[in-house]
Amino acid sequence: MDMDISNIDFSKGNGIVPVIVQDANTKEILTLAYTNKESLERTLATGNSWFWSRSRKKLWMKGEESGNTQKVKEIKVDCDSDSLIYFVEPSGPACHTGERTCFHNSLKNG
Amino acid sequence: MDMDISNIDFSKGNGIVPVIVQDANTKEILTLAYTNKESLERTLATGNSWFWSRSRKKLWMKGEESGNTQKVKEIKVDCDSDSLIYFVEPSGPACHTGERTCFHNSLKNG
Repeated sequence: MDMDISNIDFSKGNGIVPVIVQDANTKEILTLAYTNKESLERTLATGNSWFWSRSRKKLWMKGEESGNTQKVKEIKVDCDSDSLIYFVEPSGPACHTGERTCFHNSLKNG
Repeated sequence: MDMDISNIDFSKGNGIVPVIVQDANTKEILTLAYTNKESLERTLATGNSWFWSRSRKKLWMKGEESGNTQKVKEIKVDCDSDSLIYFVEPSGPACHTGERTCFHNSLKNG
């Protein structure tokens, strides 16, 4: 089903929803971040991934400091409209540590 | 880096962290759910995916009613230890609607 931003349920998370950032080509999961309505609007308007920082309490664009921006090719919404996937084409590492993905630690090895 | 459950930071989310459930074979993202320490311990002990339901305020095992359980093959932790990926082998649809994935709605088409 096609949705618009008014369908997203920001209420359960006090104005924010989690966003899974997945590489559109490799399908690797890069980051789990958060967005409010305004950063989602900026993502849709600009085609770059924008988020809400819970710790800094501000909007941020991925790559605004590092240059490692992400082009958002597609956005999916889950069945109860309270979480999102951004399918992105990254221009560099997703993690501030320089790793390709933020999920570089293991709790259970495969 | 290999971690154990004591490394997971449950404090930012008032005792819960988001879990991305990803198909270990196809790499499709199936669900975004939540876990507390106890449901994560059950996941590690049993090899089935357990979660914390925010709406019902209880532990639940995926498939406990539907039979569509998920075998957890691997667990990854992100760089600030406050979100997880379960790589699973599902025995049926992830979504309560019968869809293979909960992310079957589109906000932006690819």
